[in-house]
Amino acid sequence: MKAKILRVNLTKKCWQEEKISLSKMAGGRYLTSYLISREVPPHTRPFSEQNKIILACGPLAGQGISSASRLSVGSKSPLTGGIKEANAGGTAGDALARLGWNAVILEGRSPEWVILVLEEQEVKFLPAERYLGLGNYKTAELLHQEWGKDYSLILIGPAGEKKLWASGVAVTDPCGRPSRMAARGGLGAVMGSKRVKGILLPYGQVSPSLREKRWSLIEAKKEFHHLILKSERIKILAKYGTAETLGLVNTLGALPTRNFRQGQFELAHLINGEALFNLIKERQGAGKHTEKCMAACLIRCSNVVPAPDGTEIVAPLEYETLGLMGANLGVSDLDSIARWNYYLNDLGLDTIEVGAALGVMAEAGLATFGQPLSFEKIILEIYKDGLLGRLAGMGASFCGLALGTERVPAIKGQAISAYDPRGVKGTGLTYLTSPMGADHTAGLTVFAPVDHHTKEGQKELSFRTQIIRAAYDALGLCVFLLSATGQHPDKVVNLLNACYDLELKPHYLEELGAEVISIEKAYNTAAGLPEVEELPEFMKEEPLDPYHLSWDIPPEELACFWENLKVGGRKP
Amino acid sequence: MKAKILRVNLTKKCWQEEKISLSKMAGGRYLTSYLISREVPPHTRPFSEQNKIILACGPLAGQGISSASRLSVGSKSPLTGGIKEANAGGTAGDALARLGWNAVILEGRSPEWVILVLEEQEVKFLPAERYLGLGNYKTAELLHQEWGKDYSLILIGPAGEKKLWASGVAVTDPCGRPSRMAARGGLGAVMGSKRVKGILLPYGQVSPSLREKRWSLIEAKKEFHHLILKSERIKILAKYGTAETLGLVNTLGALPTRNFRQGQFELAHLINGEALFNLIKERQGAGKHTEKCMAACLIRCSNVVPAPDGTEIVAPLEYETLGLMGANLGVSDLDSIARWNYYLNDLGLDTIEVGAALGVMAEAGLATFGQPLSFEKIILEIYKDGLLGRLAGMGASFCGLALGTERVPAIKGQAISAYDPRGVKGTGLTYLTSPMGADHTAGLTVFAPVDHHTKEGQKELSFRTQIIRAAYDALGLCVFLLSATGQHPDKVVNLLNACYDLELKPHYLEELGAEVISIEKAYNTAAGLPEVEELPEFMKEEPLDPYHLSWDIPPEELACFWENLKVGGRKP
Repeated sequence: MKAKILRVNLTKKCWQEEKISLSKMAGGRYLTSYLISREVPPHTRPFSEQNKIILACGPLAGQGISSASRLSVGSKSPLTGGIKEANAGGTAGDALARLGWNAVILEGRSPEWVILVLEEQEVKFLPAERYLGLGNYKTAELLHQEWGKDYSLILIGPAGEKKLWASGVAVTDPCGRPSRMAARGGLGAVMGSKRVKGILLPYGQVSPSLREKRWSLIEAKKEFHHLILKSERIKILAKYGTAETLGLVNTLGALPTRNFRQGQFELAHLINGEALFNLIKERQGAGKHTEKCMAACLIRCSNVVPAPDGTEIVAPLEYETLGLMGANLGVSDLDSIARWNYYLNDLGLDTIEVGAALGVMAEAGLATFGQPLSFEKIILEIYKDGLLGRLAGMGASFCGLALGTERVPAIKGQAISAYDPRGVKGTGLTYLTSPMGADHTAGLTVFAPVDHHTKEGQKELSFRTQIIRAAYDALGLCVFLLSATGQHPDKVVNLLNACYDLELKPHYLEELGAEVISIEKAYNTAAGLPEVEELPEFMKEEPLDPYHLSWDIPPEELACFWENLKVGGRKP
Repeated sequence: MKAKILRVNLTKKCWQEEKISLSKMAGGRYLTSYLISREVPPHTRPFSEQNKIILACGPLAGQGISSASRLSVGSKSPLTGGIKEANAGGTAGDALARLGWNAVILEGRSPEWVILVLEEQEVKFLPAERYLGLGNYKTAELLHQEWGKDYSLILIGPAGEKKLWASGVAVTDPCGRPSRMAARGGLGAVMGSKRVKGILLPYGQVSPSLREKRWSLIEAKKEFHHLILKSERIKILAKYGTAETLGLVNTLGALPTRNFRQGQFELAHLINGEALFNLIKERQGAGKHTEKCMAACLIRCSNVVPAPDGTEIVAPLEYETLGLMGANLGVSDLDSIARWNYYLNDLGLDTIEVGAALGVMAEAGLATFGQPLSFEKIILEIYKDGLLGRLAGMGASFCGLALGTERVPAIKGQAISAYDPRGVKGTGLTYLTSPMGADHTAGLTVFAPVDHHTKEGQKELSFRTQIIRAAYDALGLCVFLLSATGQHPDKVVNLLNACYDLELKPHYLEELGAEVISIEKAYNTAAGLPEVEELPEFMKEEPLDPYHLSWDIPPEELACFWENLKVGGRKP
């Protein structure tokens, strides 16, 4: 395919349009990883002018297809030192597609802080001075006041401005909240290093693609949407949101509890999907147990958490946050967790990374497991740029170094998500082998109907999951679709065929996923990262109670993890 | 030459002797860098089991030659991420040579903490439990009590045990003080990561080499020593020690003052060579204004600083410490600086790195320039493993990240020594181009009779200085010899010829230096480090008062710095 790229040179404040040929019909993570590997030398320091930020939508964005408009953000990560992609829902993926860009490359470094406005035939560089230091919510409010609600926003908070390594990139949701985060890998800090506080994209004003009216696409969409609507798992997601996962992982004995010391949290029932659902139902007000994060979404796993008085605390509150800032800190108070989630969205920080960092701080005696106020104090310190706040914002590994704690749940410099590798072994393998580091989105296996405690079959499971997730990421598709469409690659490929007059076969998805991972692996190898990582020592030494689970995947099996990665396939 | 290597596998607690062929007659930094580049893959993480520590003496050690017995310690550095060598005086270089080893390789990681005893036909692995947490002075005292004063010790302090990145490797001096530090690059932390608390080498008991009685060597030594004795610069060193440099650098306007904010310290006269000399003279007691750091040394730039009651505060107190912990902190109290030097020796930390880190902390408001107690509090926190103490012990760059201060005087992750690059431009070039990072020992130009403020001729000066210093490091020679022997390479080569029946020509030194640097450069390139670094932003932006000196070396000149590095030459 030919991709249309908008290249924005921040140093010179100029921009140009480019067309590049790609061997795959894809966007999203394929495009971010392809462009980073082509344009950013592997040894580039993450905050140097030579690093770039790539924003890319998938090829199905902007067409009214459910859950197909995620925005990928790619760069070299300050946390992992390798290539990173993180994606988010919200409206920016659609907005980018409707502007006609497959990707935007931000390169160089602006001499002063700017806000970019990407319009159909123009890029504006506006002074950002008055927004500096403001949280994402206030910044979004001001920008929407000034420019109108019709703009989609891509923002960094005060944490990104300060280049805190746990900073993410926030995208506004259909209601204008800057709470959809491309959270992992510290990409917000890279955006901060470029002195870009935010990006505006016209959203509502732009007319939908003509392709939407094609008969073949209407048909393909119908079949695709039908699959989603009939999925039982998706019905559960629409009721309880991702919080529903907490019960499952707790039952498995793999819920990070008190800095990954236990796999079950005795107060899990106070923060699980049902508890959250009930809280929303009881309090009502602004609360919603189901909501879309993208304009077209039939999954609707998002939610709005209301305070006792009915006002909104945060939207959404998701499983990873409940895991890392709840069980992992011994905290069972949904109000606290929701409020912290709001603070971190506002600051522009990854709740996984900060949650893990707070666990490390409790390990070091700077906070107390189970005492919410001891953590809240540190979170509020991030606003004041206090030392402990900064450490939390730098992430778990940095915290461990600063505090001298080796009990740090991180791999490749990045905090482990809310699935203890000892209890969900396939996901553990993903953490150790994915070019993304300890990032569940790269290959979460917990929903597969297998015994997650045994080592048998986990390698194949993680391998397949990583490939298919990479393909979904490369198509801008939400991975929650997988429970509905995972067994029907033809329905996904049909969408591409209908949009672009292609004749792709279902195995295209595997080819695409393999290609994405091979690009990323090659980059990381050139950057000096090992192909396979090791678990933190403590996870190798301590069995995980209550099921006394040990990490028992033999190193030989890990070493040859990627040997069957086949890359190739025809050009679309 | 054939080098005799003792390989100690810490994981398996075994050892073996190896002989390797080298293309150069050298040891020291040549051997450490050669072995690291051959045995430690460039992308190895500094604290992984795959990293190694190499200890090497020069080929002239153990022969009673003045200032020729420095011990080189080599490894991959946690601070720079590249290859590092740091060397120290003391008795270990002679001890190693007399045991017949050119180098010791420490590889793997001991399952529990050990003390190694290297004897003539044996390596002992002793439990180190009872020494853990003890400072270098107490450890040395206990080990000397137990084993006798005749043992040379190579130790890490509590900082190295905790893997603080500013940790050095301490070597005992002829009086048994563990105060000769292979300080830079965090090599003590690597030794800590291997769980080696200390190494004992028999020293006094071993009879001197037979070569010492050779007529040709006696003659060559005589000529060499004669050069030293007649050098005016060395007479000054013997009177004032390295502290004498402070006056010179202050006059030049290049003395780091208050975190490199000024180049002159208004209270420099209270901490310069004369002030120190007078303090020692007045107080007498244990004080000595001149002392040897190695058994054979005619330079005797070391000293013993007495307290008002005549008891010893520290030995020695040197220029870099006076610069970084004095002027750089706005502190003019010799007693405080001497006491801090003792503490850092005891903890096993580099005074340059910690001094720079304390300056960064003052920059961030955690201490106050000119108020000694505000710094002493932080230094004492290192003993208690308090957070601020840990940050100081992690060095200037880590401190800057933790505190959010970008005014950090560091290059390649390592603190700049006590010569502001804006005021001593040749040394600035060394910082930016040396594989060792910001380390004056790699190529200090301040004693050259040139205008250090102009850019003219600095490139050639730094280049030549780096080459000759690399050669001296590779021969185990103290670089302070250079003022006496720098113009007489024949006298150095004569020593080698007399010892080893060779016919090396004087230009051998240049060949050797070039070879050392080219090995290190190739390693760093493979590890992903740039060949040429950049100054910290603030040094590019702020002119240095009082002489309003800017960094004006054009990037083009830097980019081609090493283009004339010629490597080759005949085998000895």
